Amino acid sequence: MRQSYIPSGGAIWWQNWDETTKLSIEVKEMIHSEQTPFQKIEVYRSDTYGTFFTLDGLMMVNEKDEFIYHEMITHVAMATNPDIQTILIIGGGDGGTSRELSKYPKIKRIDMVEIDERVVRVCETYLPVTAGHLKEDSRIKLYFEDGFKFISNQMDGIYDLIIVDSTDPIGPGEGLFTKAFYELCHRKLSPNGILINQHESPYYEFHQKGMLRAHARIKALFPVVEVYQYHMPTYPSGHWLFGFASKKLDPIGDHNVKAWEKLGIKTRYYNSKIHEGAFALPNYVLDLINHRE
Amino acid sequence: MRQSYIPSGGAIWWQNWDETTKLSIEVKEMIHSEQTPFQKIEVYRSDTYGTFFTLDGLMMVNEKDEFIYHEMITHVAMATNPDIQTILIIGGGDGGTSRELSKYPKIKRIDMVEIDERVVRVCETYLPVTAGHLKEDSRIKLYFEDGFKFISNQMDGIYDLIIVDSTDPIGPGEGLFTKAFYELCHRKLSPNGILINQHESPYYEFHQKGMLRAHARIKALFPVVEVYQYHMPTYPSGHWLFGFASKKLDPIGDHNVKAWEKLGIKTRYYNSKIHEGAFALPNYVLDLINHRE
Repeated sequence: MRQSYIPSGGAIWWQNWDETTKLSIEVKEMIHSEQTPFQKIEVYRSDTYGTFFTLDGLMMVNEKDEFIYHEMITHVAMATNPDIQTILIIGGGDGGTSRELSKYPKIKRIDMVEIDERVVRVCETYLPVTAGHLKEDSRIKLYFEDGFKFISNQMDGIYDLIIVDSTDPIGPGEGLFTKAFYELCHRKLSPNGILINQHESPYYEFHQKGMLRAHARIKALFPVVEVYQYHMPTYPSGHWLFGFASKKLDPIGDHNVKAWEKLGIKTRYYNSKIHEGAFALPNYVLDLINHRE
Repeated sequence: MRQSYIPSGGAIWWQNWDETTKLSIEVKEMIHSEQTPFQKIEVYRSDTYGTFFTLDGLMMVNEKDEFIYHEMITHVAMATNPDIQTILIIGGGDGGTSRELSKYPKIKRIDMVEIDERVVRVCETYLPVTAGHLKEDSRIKLYFEDGFKFISNQMDGIYDLIIVDSTDPIGPGEGLFTKAFYELCHRKLSPNGILINQHESPYYEFHQKGMLRAHARIKALFPVVEVYQYHMPTYPSGHWLFGFASKKLDPIGDHNVKAWEKLGIKTRYYNSKIHEGAFALPNYVLDLINHRE
């Protein structure tokens, strides 16, 4: 169900959004393809989306709309606590998440743990828009190892922000949706700590299940647990979510508009109104996350 | 570019989202197809979306997510002015928009002007979920004529709410995106009047153009002009907009949460938080509607 292919006669990339639904994109060429020990990485050039790359056939990052995902995974937490200094990114090998964080002068250290070094190297070659800064910002430390193992070995309470920038809960991303992993995140966060996680989508059944599983597990651990949404057109259904969990800070009650606006950070999707509006969820999503676990 | 087809060997419905992008849906069968004087109507059965119907190959209404579109096109205006009594719907032949409005006991009259009677009849047969109430609510008066002509013949100032529930600005929907048409809407609205219009989408170029054209024209006429967004997965990009224009009332400043909550109307997408959150637009959309006209 979850694969892509290039038919022999043409140049069409496609991804299944559910068992009966498919998004297809005409591509100019496939410019890279490799099977790593973890997954298949492919890179394409297209008219509408510019360069894009996929993991095991799933759209990860394209030049047209990656800014939406990467702004929303970072700035909501940073505008809730602009004093964040130490950050752990799990996954995020394309670099987009750390690119947004590197706009904050107060941040002292960004540990980025990507299981598959090839994702970083391929993005450095083909997607400078997300990976170009990785060699330039000395606050970013890259670790190529399993995120679960890495976090186990860190001191308790040292991160102000942990961002789980993972793929779907299948393949290499699976361990990043487990209860044991979220417990580790909780333990490694400082008293003001925030956990942001890729929270799947409410629309199609497969992603809905991932969303509900992640949500129930995080809810059992953190006193503050919220979900926020955004429009991500090239992900299945275009209706995508992040989870916001914390030990203390509330994304609306502690939203520090003034401090964030003062930083003068340029964004193309995120702004202070979107920050608050994104937490307004449709009734059917609220029903799902509040009643089914 | 904008057509659908059923390939001879299988049962795949598809729609182009832009020149290089396509959404395709496996269907169980096509259960109806006809060419009217205005457009081609087709009805399909599918696993994921239940029954759905298309006009000239474009997805209009399906049983899985029509509630999103129809709740968002109606309740935002009704919660801004719960005293609305007379309403004109232009288009909306599937009935979904009037279904939501028929939940309000205070409404006295709903004129619904659909250019193509066959749309209503086909939906009455195959989509009772949206059209089933049409014969039961005596406040709804159906007119099968051109919306532009119909509105020209009405008395000035008689509608509290006009909803333009149109297709894209090509084919029969084209006249509903013109300056002359919006001027007529303005004239036929009461002093508290609100105009809601199908406002296309900011993501793909074709819809972005429609959005900008409509926005500039409405902005030239009304003192209050806002745009709000929602997640509509089966429309191109899933990022879809409505326009809110009025002679006086502001959708946030005059949002009457108490009065609306008191009505106890059941909704699956809309709620009072979504009402306000939907007006928080991404920077790239704000840049488009504020700077390019």
